[in-house]
Amino acid sequence: MANTEATEPLLLGSEDPEAQKLRRQLKNRRLRRARSAPCNIIGDSPDTNCNIPEPRSESLFGNIHSSFRKVAMYYLILYLGIGSVVFYLVRDQLKGLKTNGVLDAIYFTVVTMTTVGYGDIVPDSNLTKLLACALVFSVMPLVGLILGKAADYLAEKQQVYLVKAMHKMHQQVGQRARYKFLLAFFLLLIMIIVGTVFLVAVEKLEVVDALYCVCSTLTTLGYGGKSFSTEAGRIFAVFWILAGTISLALVFLYIAELNTESREKAIVKLVLSRKMTILDLEEADLDGDGKVGAAEFIIYKLKDMGKISEEAISLLMQEFEELDVDQDGILSVSDLTGQVGNI
Amino acid sequence: MANTEATEPLLLGSEDPEAQKLRRQLKNRRLRRARSAPCNIIGDSPDTNCNIPEPRSESLFGNIHSSFRKVAMYYLILYLGIGSVVFYLVRDQLKGLKTNGVLDAIYFTVVTMTTVGYGDIVPDSNLTKLLACALVFSVMPLVGLILGKAADYLAEKQQVYLVKAMHKMHQQVGQRARYKFLLAFFLLLIMIIVGTVFLVAVEKLEVVDALYCVCSTLTTLGYGGKSFSTEAGRIFAVFWILAGTISLALVFLYIAELNTESREKAIVKLVLSRKMTILDLEEADLDGDGKVGAAEFIIYKLKDMGKISEEAISLLMQEFEELDVDQDGILSVSDLTGQVGNI
Repeated sequence: MANTEATEPLLLGSEDPEAQKLRRQLKNRRLRRARSAPCNIIGDSPDTNCNIPEPRSESLFGNIHSSFRKVAMYYLILYLGIGSVVFYLVRDQLKGLKTNGVLDAIYFTVVTMTTVGYGDIVPDSNLTKLLACALVFSVMPLVGLILGKAADYLAEKQQVYLVKAMHKMHQQVGQRARYKFLLAFFLLLIMIIVGTVFLVAVEKLEVVDALYCVCSTLTTLGYGGKSFSTEAGRIFAVFWILAGTISLALVFLYIAELNTESREKAIVKLVLSRKMTILDLEEADLDGDGKVGAAEFIIYKLKDMGKISEEAISLLMQEFEELDVDQDGILSVSDLTGQVGNI
Repeated sequence: MANTEATEPLLLGSEDPEAQKLRRQLKNRRLRRARSAPCNIIGDSPDTNCNIPEPRSESLFGNIHSSFRKVAMYYLILYLGIGSVVFYLVRDQLKGLKTNGVLDAIYFTVVTMTTVGYGDIVPDSNLTKLLACALVFSVMPLVGLILGKAADYLAEKQQVYLVKAMHKMHQQVGQRARYKFLLAFFLLLIMIIVGTVFLVAVEKLEVVDALYCVCSTLTTLGYGGKSFSTEAGRIFAVFWILAGTISLALVFLYIAELNTESREKAIVKLVLSRKMTILDLEEADLDGDGKVGAAEFIIYKLKDMGKISEEAISLLMQEFEELDVDQDGILSVSDLTGQVGNI
């Protein structure tokens, strides 16, 4: 039963590409779930080997995230390319400590796009000042894209951690969020150490000056003062600034994920450990027939966990009543006949 | 029916304050919803004046957001206060363009905490360099807090826009997301204009230099060069920098919200406009009794919209089966007797 594949062709009509893309995404999610989930529950195959599967947290939305990574990467390369070429062409209108022409243009672009802005090379004409404004404002869509994706990621994780926390009521599962946070934190530490050592060894800074430069770079503060003035230093800086600021951003992301995880855990613990009372039964009885079936129980618990609002349920209920032509509270083939006839 | 208030006292046991707080939040959500939602649906009070209520998007999580705003505000004031006092005390170890001692300390703190870092006043000793590092790193928790809250906000909005989009299938409702975005964008424009005019009029900059300084401030780039060098300029800067960077952040947030809204709309349109087929009916039949009740229909649609995963449903189903002692597929008072007896 429940052959998702077979129903799909019916869905694809003459619709715009955007809707088709969305449909594919939703379909992917359903298919992936279908592969991992229904287990001794629908009832027609008492599969005794069936364990509760580990949530497919990583692969579930893998397609969406990888396509985002591709877009962000293209944007970054295009941005760095165009920025570097433009500022190489107007390199005579930049003032400050200069090394190699091409390298300085790339270095200036990176220092600008990460909003570090040391001030060791600055625009020195109206043209370059306006170009710098354009450069820094045109990175904003990328920042917006990244923040939006981070929010999506966390929203998806909320679902994943809900499931994980429910599993936890039954069995132990690993903690990926803490692991990812530690990894990002470790990466940031390495960036701090590598940057400090480099500045001391190659740029010949004092240790405090080196630490100060590292701090002011990773936080994108960039007061100026001593930074990367040698050719080797600027080659290093181009990679190190990008990697360092990304590390800090990842630390933030995974802290937020840790919070999401612990909150979902708390909600699940609260709601699932709560004993059902007679009043709960009354409240759960959606169709008012005095009986609480499995589906009504599930909706009640979802509502209790704040996963779905009363209003959304009301509106779906309305939808159901419109479909239920014979008003018997059950959606049957006869209710659909009018529709099915069209296909 | 459904007397939420009466069931609540049963829930409050001897638990830790964190759990109680969470419980109160969940309860608040449920109570608020209960006030606005159940309407001609449970079936025992055919209220003919009942319109579909406008989603309570703003007030629903108002408590949580306002407590966050309070925390963020306290943090900001404490941060500015401590930062200003500390850098006032070590003002002799800062170099650069100075005006009034107190004002410069506040100005330096704001320029540092927003990571603008013009470089017009910079640390000039090991002590002040390390203090500046501490200052800029201690703003990171606030940034993390804000980003986390922004993600929560967007996740909640996802639910709200789901409901709004479902309403739209029936009736027209206003578009708050676009309105908020335009407001933030307008605020940002005003900040840009006010900043530019001020820099031209008071700091006597060229128009291009003023625009360049505004750009490099709002994006927190802060190359240095010409910025706020007068006393009046720095008083203005303290407020303008904070307001300006917040405006830009709000523009980002509301762009993300617009995306969320349009995606939810697309999902709802796709799923609700889709015709049910016989295969859908089979898939929706959770308990496998050959009938699709209202609750099963709702779960099927929620699953279809990607709002709840198959796994979460499986686990709740398991929960149900454990509670359903007599295995008749219905949760009745007799199933609960063992539990109810304990209360």
